[in-house]
Amino acid sequence: MHGFLIVLSGPSGAGKNSVMNAVFPTIPNLKYSISVTTRPPRVGEVDEVNYFFRSEQEFDQMIKDDLLLESANFVGYRYGTPKSFVYDQIHAGNAVIMDIDIQGAAQIRKKMPEAVFVFLLPPTPEELSKRLKLRGSDSDEVIKRRLAKSYEEIKHIVDYDYYIVNDDLGRAADQLRQIICSEWSRVSRIDMKELKGVWEGGFSGETCE
Amino acid sequence: MHGFLIVLSGPSGAGKNSVMNAVFPTIPNLKYSISVTTRPPRVGEVDEVNYFFRSEQEFDQMIKDDLLLESANFVGYRYGTPKSFVYDQIHAGNAVIMDIDIQGAAQIRKKMPEAVFVFLLPPTPEELSKRLKLRGSDSDEVIKRRLAKSYEEIKHIVDYDYYIVNDDLGRAADQLRQIICSEWSRVSRIDMKELKGVWEGGFSGETCE
Repeated sequence: MHGFLIVLSGPSGAGKNSVMNAVFPTIPNLKYSISVTTRPPRVGEVDEVNYFFRSEQEFDQMIKDDLLLESANFVGYRYGTPKSFVYDQIHAGNAVIMDIDIQGAAQIRKKMPEAVFVFLLPPTPEELSKRLKLRGSDSDEVIKRRLAKSYEEIKHIVDYDYYIVNDDLGRAADQLRQIICSEWSRVSRIDMKELKGVWEGGFSGETCE
Repeated sequence: MHGFLIVLSGPSGAGKNSVMNAVFPTIPNLKYSISVTTRPPRVGEVDEVNYFFRSEQEFDQMIKDDLLLESANFVGYRYGTPKSFVYDQIHAGNAVIMDIDIQGAAQIRKKMPEAVFVFLLPPTPEELSKRLKLRGSDSDEVIKRRLAKSYEEIKHIVDYDYYIVNDDLGRAADQLRQIICSEWSRVSRIDMKELKGVWEGGFSGETCE
């Protein structure tokens, strides 16, 4: 039985991190995707735990060798998702989850269309506005612009497999858990070459642990 | 938001009825598919509740008019699944579930490939044999033949979307519930023509009620 990649997207303010963090303790075989970055480590950050810290040249080489599922620039540094980490986990039978914006998800969809794409929605534009204001990191002007383009972002939902409305953190987390667990019971994750042996030796019912 | 059809198959003795019956009370919007039959009603059976009771001629006409998703003969009577009941429920936003053998599921797959196909497995051949003996309705000879062909049946799992191992009734029912609820959060069930209105009016997070 092999695992799979879950890509969680949605407008900023939808609550991607809170929902993911609520799900982690409930699924032992769920791992967070570790990114590669050219940003220097902050105090306490450990290579291969928080990030794979790499030089500009190393990052360039990874792109050249097609070793990244996606990459982006952010305030002068580069970030990406190494294929090797994701595939190693999947082959070890784990599910890997990452939260990423709509542009990053589109890059991943091209390289790994078999991943599971989940779109997280705030319940209403008003609620999204309230959350962005509470966060306090954006000016009123920026919030206004974000809201104006929120419908443009939400249109991308058509490219995703599942959607979750984050009207209540506990409920939304439960729904993400259901999606992950039911994806684990997909027939496509059984190795058909081993079906006879598995049937004679006994199928395991535990698909989400 | 529209519903969908769930087709539950598996070898006899897998426990399809027990698992379904455990799930019904937990999902109010889940309905059992009502079959049409030429068998006369038994005492207490009500037309359009237990079955749609129809004459041979009416049954023939339904087949001619392509009004059935599948049909089969069983000890001299005919049974079928009327499209109208299934589609009415789906358009009303309900999920419809039915348990059916592998041959019936194959008929439905041709007419309604968008249905959700779930295969229920007993954990081991030994456990299947034990259950069939406990049931007491088959002779040792019949049970022996059933077991001999169980692997042939299980090979059909490749045609299904999900599988559930019924090693424990509570766990298997919980897994079926997860599959139904996560299928309800599929983006493909959103009416995209209404997306803007839904976003402005507010998305509902309740997908499994």
